[in-house]
Amino acid sequence: MPLENRHYFDWASTAIPEYPQLAPPSHFGNPSSLHLEGRLAKEALESARTRCASVLNVPLETLYFTSGGTESNCIVLFSHIARQGAGRIAASLGEHSSITENLRILDRLGRRTGLIPIGPSGRVTDSVLSETLTKYNNVRFAAIMAVNNETGTINDIASLRKITADKEPPVHFHCDMVQAVGKIPVDVAGWGIDSASFSAHKIGGPRGIGLLYLRKPLEVLYSGGGQERGIRPGTENVYGALALAHCLETRAQPETVSAEYEKAKARCERLISSLKQISRCRLIPAEREKDGFSPYIVQTAFKDIPGEVMVRALDDLGFAVSTGSACTSARSERPVLAAMGIDNKLAFEGIRISQGWSTTDEEIDLLLGAIREVLKSL
Amino acid sequence: MPLENRHYFDWASTAIPEYPQLAPPSHFGNPSSLHLEGRLAKEALESARTRCASVLNVPLETLYFTSGGTESNCIVLFSHIARQGAGRIAASLGEHSSITENLRILDRLGRRTGLIPIGPSGRVTDSVLSETLTKYNNVRFAAIMAVNNETGTINDIASLRKITADKEPPVHFHCDMVQAVGKIPVDVAGWGIDSASFSAHKIGGPRGIGLLYLRKPLEVLYSGGGQERGIRPGTENVYGALALAHCLETRAQPETVSAEYEKAKARCERLISSLKQISRCRLIPAEREKDGFSPYIVQTAFKDIPGEVMVRALDDLGFAVSTGSACTSARSERPVLAAMGIDNKLAFEGIRISQGWSTTDEEIDLLLGAIREVLKSL
Repeated sequence: MPLENRHYFDWASTAIPEYPQLAPPSHFGNPSSLHLEGRLAKEALESARTRCASVLNVPLETLYFTSGGTESNCIVLFSHIARQGAGRIAASLGEHSSITENLRILDRLGRRTGLIPIGPSGRVTDSVLSETLTKYNNVRFAAIMAVNNETGTINDIASLRKITADKEPPVHFHCDMVQAVGKIPVDVAGWGIDSASFSAHKIGGPRGIGLLYLRKPLEVLYSGGGQERGIRPGTENVYGALALAHCLETRAQPETVSAEYEKAKARCERLISSLKQISRCRLIPAEREKDGFSPYIVQTAFKDIPGEVMVRALDDLGFAVSTGSACTSARSERPVLAAMGIDNKLAFEGIRISQGWSTTDEEIDLLLGAIREVLKSL
Repeated sequence: MPLENRHYFDWASTAIPEYPQLAPPSHFGNPSSLHLEGRLAKEALESARTRCASVLNVPLETLYFTSGGTESNCIVLFSHIARQGAGRIAASLGEHSSITENLRILDRLGRRTGLIPIGPSGRVTDSVLSETLTKYNNVRFAAIMAVNNETGTINDIASLRKITADKEPPVHFHCDMVQAVGKIPVDVAGWGIDSASFSAHKIGGPRGIGLLYLRKPLEVLYSGGGQERGIRPGTENVYGALALAHCLETRAQPETVSAEYEKAKARCERLISSLKQISRCRLIPAEREKDGFSPYIVQTAFKDIPGEVMVRALDDLGFAVSTGSACTSARSERPVLAAMGIDNKLAFEGIRISQGWSTTDEEIDLLLGAIREVLKSL
């Protein structure tokens, strides 16, 4: 039956949208509803999940739609409140604030927590992880991100996972992959991790939608209407899920990632080699080991120019760069850089230059020109 | 500077969208970023908040964008884990599963909880609330929804709030207003409630965006990047916020609500008076007190026809109705109807007919005709 001939009497579950451009009429229903509109919405949601699972090469049933990377991280972390468990919850010092801040909250609530140090490159090394596991001996959960959002540092998740894999009792390995998917080759299932977080808006999708990968279902803290098989309550964001599936297909297929990676790397090398010729430039870290950093993110400082001043000066010239992560830009701390051993003054001179698939060599050169112009005047 | 002349190097905070139709280029930035794109996004977000505050007639600083009604309810409920506090957490038996299910979880975690009974109309009466407060004597939090999502029962929030208002220690009054805003006249500030939940998709907006009203800031459980003044972490859903503001302006201005309420009431009366002439029809509750029910929601049963069977039969004829709330449609329980004293058989025969602003008299008549047709064959 064509939908225009239907009569809709389930407005309490979801209203007919005022936004037809956002909401193809065939998918507007509440996926939990039994009627045609509901079933079509459910089909659309599940087709989005199937497409995401196909791109990420993971079983369909391991993916749960959430409102974004932060919520995905929170669901996993706060599952420790829902479940009984005596072990220690550890996270690397390079993690995003949605991990580190919530680790502090779990600590205040009496859970045992631990921190995994990062080296001068911002990386968790195999030996440091081994030492941390030995030091605490009761770690049951470890969060280590794939790509650091401030420096682009890549952690070797496959190798790190091997270190935790044979521990008894088992260690749950959580990986924040928000800055990794669509940017560097990833192998969610192959790495053997237990959970991972993804965000749509970092790969061209809308805000308000993300994914949580769970190798096995988890007992979570929040409950509600039972959506997403009990892992994430709330009416499902069908349009968001479809948009995320589209973006993963467009940006995160292995061959696309590899091809774009090479192009981004060439642009990144162009940027870094020119930055090195600027005497006041201090790359953070000073050296980037080959293939150890995402070419999409460069952290650099300019001697005696606070990062915020540089950001504003470049902004005036038409260039958008940032200091740390946007999430902490209003705060007077650079905890990740501090954990790398960067002194306070240099850390506050740091800016982050992050590029994407439509960035061009010409734009890199224009940015370098703008930086030189700012340096002349400051 | 026109945005098309800008050079964007902050892809790590948010990517340039692949979805221009969802994402006016002027608002795509990360609202936490310092650059022009970030400031424009922040301005858009705050303009959305201002518009929502204006429609709801509450101070700007009391509104926080969330991912929807469920999350708004969860933030308030789970704040009890973040804060020390010896009091009892109570909720009415009419509440949505995002309240009742999480109350159970809080109970399992050792928090003292309590249930506020509802009467045969599904309503929390002043006297029952008084008795509940006396019975427990240590209630610090009470959740009572404005409009029940299964029956349309309206609670007199202003009157109920008065009963809790002079208690010492104070009682936090939380009101789920998801089915109320845009449907019945509301007075968030005037009622004196401490917190309230709103959802965009119930008033024509997209899924994945909602509002939390907090009369005063609350210490919440989850943390992260500090967005929404620490109440709701995660990159802000700017487009969602703008869509929600638009829907509130379109659907929830007091004069619109009143005008649409009268029209919906006339259609509701047309529906109910015809239903009463069907011998197998059992309205739930049997009588609806004048002005005691939202005209947008009618719960009714048909003797010896399970609700799910009626839903499927009407669906085949082109009509979308539901059993209980969509969120619990997959479950074999009707807890709200049970709490009203409805016997089990009748409860499972219940269907919910919910209408909206574009529903017509003609559609009501067609639905009634379809119901009669189904009754003939079953």
